[in-house]
Amino acid sequence: MTPPPITLLTDFGTADGYVAEMKGVLSTLAPTVPLLDLSHDIPPQDITAARLALARCWRRFPVGTVHLVVVDPGVGTSRAALAVASEGRFLVGPDNGVLSPALFALDAQVVQLVVPESASPTFHGRDVFAPTAARLATGTPLDELGERLLHPVRLRTPAPRRDANGALHGEVLTIDRFGNAITNLMPAPGAHPHHVTVGMHALRVVRTYADAESGEAVALVGSSGWLELAVRDGHAAASLGLRRGDRVEAR
Amino acid sequence: MTPPPITLLTDFGTADGYVAEMKGVLSTLAPTVPLLDLSHDIPPQDITAARLALARCWRRFPVGTVHLVVVDPGVGTSRAALAVASEGRFLVGPDNGVLSPALFALDAQVVQLVVPESASPTFHGRDVFAPTAARLATGTPLDELGERLLHPVRLRTPAPRRDANGALHGEVLTIDRFGNAITNLMPAPGAHPHHVTVGMHALRVVRTYADAESGEAVALVGSSGWLELAVRDGHAAASLGLRRGDRVEAR
Amino acid sequence: MTPPPITLLTDFGTADGYVAEMKGVLSTLAPTVPLLDLSHDIPPQDITAARLALARCWRRFPVGTVHLVVVDPGVGTSRAALAVASEGRFLVGPDNGVLSPALFALDAQVVQLVVPESASPTFHGRDVFAPTAARLATGTPLDELGERLLHPVRLRTPAPRRDANGALHGEVLTIDRFGNAITNLMPAPGAHPHHVTVGMHALRVVRTYADAESGEAVALVGSSGWLELAVRDGHAAASLGLRRGDRVEAR
Repeated sequence: MTPPPITLLTDFGTADGYVAEMKGVLSTLAPTVPLLDLSHDIPPQDITAARLALARCWRRFPVGTVHLVVVDPGVGTSRAALAVASEGRFLVGPDNGVLSPALFALDAQVVQLVVPESASPTFHGRDVFAPTAARLATGTPLDELGERLLHPVRLRTPAPRRDANGALHGEVLTIDRFGNAITNLMPAPGAHPHHVTVGMHALRVVRTYADAESGEAVALVGSSGWLELAVRDGHAAASLGLRRGDRVEAR
Repeated sequence: MTPPPITLLTDFGTADGYVAEMKGVLSTLAPTVPLLDLSHDIPPQDITAARLALARCWRRFPVGTVHLVVVDPGVGTSRAALAVASEGRFLVGPDNGVLSPALFALDAQVVQLVVPESASPTFHGRDVFAPTAARLATGTPLDELGERLLHPVRLRTPAPRRDANGALHGEVLTIDRFGNAITNLMPAPGAHPHHVTVGMHALRVVRTYADAESGEAVALVGSSGWLELAVRDGHAAASLGLRRGDRVEAR
Repeated sequence: MTPPPITLLTDFGTADGYVAEMKGVLSTLAPTVPLLDLSHDIPPQDITAARLALARCWRRFPVGTVHLVVVDPGVGTSRAALAVASEGRFLVGPDNGVLSPALFALDAQVVQLVVPESASPTFHGRDVFAPTAARLATGTPLDELGERLLHPVRLRTPAPRRDANGALHGEVLTIDRFGNAITNLMPAPGAHPHHVTVGMHALRVVRTYADAESGEAVALVGSSGWLELAVRDGHAAASLGLRRGDRVEAR
């Protein structure tokens, strides 16, 4: 029987060997557990980017999967170190909101890890989180890992606002590799807006990239349900001058 | 028994979580199958780069391997979605030529996948190709996945031309990470050319990088048999101003 | 039983398909052995960066692990190809010093691999090192792979110098992804210096990033014991203008 995997999501890049150290710890403590890289290319210390990437994927893995998430600008401060059980998956990482997607589930249980004296104050990924992930993956119950924590840091994607005229006001959450701007507007199925405005640009709403002309900027509902702004065969963020936090209006 | 792997080759990068979503689908549907990253750093929508990378490697994997290839600028258009059996390996991806290296094999069999209504029109990698790869890896026969397709898009590396004087005229296919310019000239064993001309530069032909002086530009037969242009301890594309499509002459 | 892994550490990037070729060889010859990427983002031909990354991690993997390290600017020259057994782990790679961290162990044993006629003179990673890694991972004894080599190239991190006044003089070894400058100064536990000087900057020594003010440049002992220079919430190398080889003084 292949056990469920441990996944790794960090902002470490790989060239410095920090991820390699974590993999050494994991493969020593959990030698039969498959290790899956989600990403090590989260921009340095970008909790939002890691949180959004995690939101997309964490539930898609099998029950029993352990998600090891280390984007940790506060390492060595008094921020807590967490292990979480949520909807049958486990997550391990710092208490800075990066694990939020799993913390809103009704059955989420959170414990605060004990940080051993011997842990490097600059690398909990290796000395705290990886060993904990290995223990969870090899069957240690959550409650053996620490005391329950009732109020972990939970970051919420900002909610859009509906004005008196029925228009939705939201913002750009992130820009993806293709230059698409993902917004916080999530139209209900069958209730797609007809027009989207961002800055000086009015965009029509289409079903998929292919409904746009080459080079045309459009809005469409992306693969996670969020409205996104795209330029067919192009880079919307560059063409439209979009950045995280820019205001978007849909009607 | 470890089953043969599923490999992943995309232009998604990893930071946005799209690859993570695909891995979630794969590890849920094919939990015992090893997942191997080939690359997620194909330049966005660069079908040629993905095709050339696939050409290098697809046959080197064990019989039964499933190559999941998602470089898919036409997602959501009427382009077909394919599953392929070729020389004992399987491939899954869009019908845009990216799978060509396996489509020229004499025994290649191709089926057109049924795209479910529920599939996101912008992310067939997650909703069509990954589930299909998992089914192939867990033993579903190719013909259960769709109807046979007789004329998939097949892209061919352009053939060089021999002129009346016996000189070969080819072009630069791609530039690799080391700045080496890979051409479409494939000398027969024992019939290496003596001189190569590119732009204003005349290069001698050597056996390996080490036969060049430091900083010297040379031509040599690379590890896949293609003639390539290199600068020892340097970056040939930058030094010689080379780009994809530049003309190369060998005699 | 899951066998110990083969790890891969290269400067190949992934987009060109060279790493994919190596994975094809490995998964064919050692189908049951897990493959773990350490990094393919070592800067091209940067033996120092690969050596330092390897130094951090190689001992953290289980006994029996095979580390396949290909940063090989001298491929095709007369440099030897090596297989190494050291502290229960195996390493395979070129004789250019990149394997040094394992070569200083007292029990290190080194053999010079036989390079087959058929090997590409430009890609020993695929044709020499990967097959050797697969053989070691599947139980071939080291001494069946070649003749003992007594004097492999061993590169040593430069030692700091203590002057007549007790000050330590060292240098910047490398800059990591976060902009931290890792030095060759390794304070004994309990004997941390109080001040560090680099260029025109005098830095106080703290225990962890969190002891600095936001934007403050400090020195601290990093997770592998080396003194490193960091800017909290910033990029020390950019702020302080640091480069590899810059002089650092601690007292």
